[in-house]
Amino acid sequence: MAARAVVLLSGGLDSATTLAIAQAEGFDCAALSFRYGQRHAVELQSAARVAAAFGVGDHRVVDIDLRAFGGSALTADIAVPKDRADAEIAGGIPITYVPARNTIMLSFALAFAEVLEAGDIFIGVNAVDYSGYPDCRPEYIAAFAAMANLATKAGVEGRTLRVHTPLIALTKAEIIRRGVALGVDYGLTLSCYDPTAAGIACGHCDSCRLRLNGFAAAGLVDPARYA
Amino acid sequence: MAARAVVLLSGGLDSATTLAIAQAEGFDCAALSFRYGQRHAVELQSAARVAAAFGVGDHRVVDIDLRAFGGSALTADIAVPKDRADAEIAGGIPITYVPARNTIMLSFALAFAEVLEAGDIFIGVNAVDYSGYPDCRPEYIAAFAAMANLATKAGVEGRTLRVHTPLIALTKAEIIRRGVALGVDYGLTLSCYDPTAAGIACGHCDSCRLRLNGFAAAGLVDPARYA
Repeated sequence: MAARAVVLLSGGLDSATTLAIAQAEGFDCAALSFRYGQRHAVELQSAARVAAAFGVGDHRVVDIDLRAFGGSALTADIAVPKDRADAEIAGGIPITYVPARNTIMLSFALAFAEVLEAGDIFIGVNAVDYSGYPDCRPEYIAAFAAMANLATKAGVEGRTLRVHTPLIALTKAEIIRRGVALGVDYGLTLSCYDPTAAGIACGHCDSCRLRLNGFAAAGLVDPARYA
Repeated sequence: MAARAVVLLSGGLDSATTLAIAQAEGFDCAALSFRYGQRHAVELQSAARVAAAFGVGDHRVVDIDLRAFGGSALTADIAVPKDRADAEIAGGIPITYVPARNTIMLSFALAFAEVLEAGDIFIGVNAVDYSGYPDCRPEYIAAFAAMANLATKAGVEGRTLRVHTPLIALTKAEIIRRGVALGVDYGLTLSCYDPTAAGIACGHCDSCRLRLNGFAAAGLVDPARYA
């Protein structure tokens, strides 16, 4: 029987690629998504489509309310920045940063893994394009895994929990090439921070720009719909 | 101006004492509670009463859904054990353990602390009475703090986040004596795993037994209501 893994699945390009990689490595994958007060709830529809396309039998959506704390353009009433220069996107901690988001999501993944008795968690964080997010760095992920192994029954009983970040050192073009090679249909995914209710991407937010630049660098055409 | 701290407040004896200690140490405390599918939602009323009694101006309640994963007598349809022997309470990982609960709650506290620019989090975990819970051990708390300092803007900017566990090495009797000395009204708190809707404790679950034994050992009478 294949080992079980929990894959964090947002419905975006990175997490869809991460799911494809986890399956290619032989894991029996369960997927975990969040309804976290994001402006763009259509991304959950993308997550469901991606999970179905990969034949994931166990896809759970957990409600969490990050709006209780405010503080990010993705959950609060702050404008999503558009058409920023690449240097601006790369520098500093962006307004789209949600406080402790990866820590909260990984914590739920840890609970899910414990219930499933899964020893592996996959998360599509990336330290190249998202260098401004403290919780996308390899040293953060290593510290989370160390904590997780002290937090749970599995750790106490001597099993080791691993946190896999297969995209962490890849450029967006490399991620896309890898996903295409694994058969990911990127037309099912949604990366935009500010899409229409029908799931059409804006083409101008940081996330759309990184994605479009990545497809261009990979010499491929993005099958997603843009306004 | 006093330094701000986030205190995890369940409405039980331990977290009320922790809040009293944090205030006595001079912190301006915000409180954080969770509606997490617990059977005993009356504990949130206790949390609100405790917060009001201590003059906490900012008390937030965050909805999280741990029932999505099942697995514990506190959130799933599993009977809460009653009248267990002390040795049984002390040994192994109990059925009332909720997978990754402290990790999830501390992660939300981390988000709240980041928004408040608070550098201190207080949690009333205890490694004496709850030796079976992996996420109540000092080495777990230290690992969480190490992770937290890599997860956030504060850590990147060189500020240090501290996780305080003032009860971790105290017996229940010592916790009660400390709280009484600090003016905690334990009649406001609720520790029972299986209370009535009116907030009357059962007196027979592990938590009630630990509490009643603690008051007896401290030579004090528990002002809480029991069935």
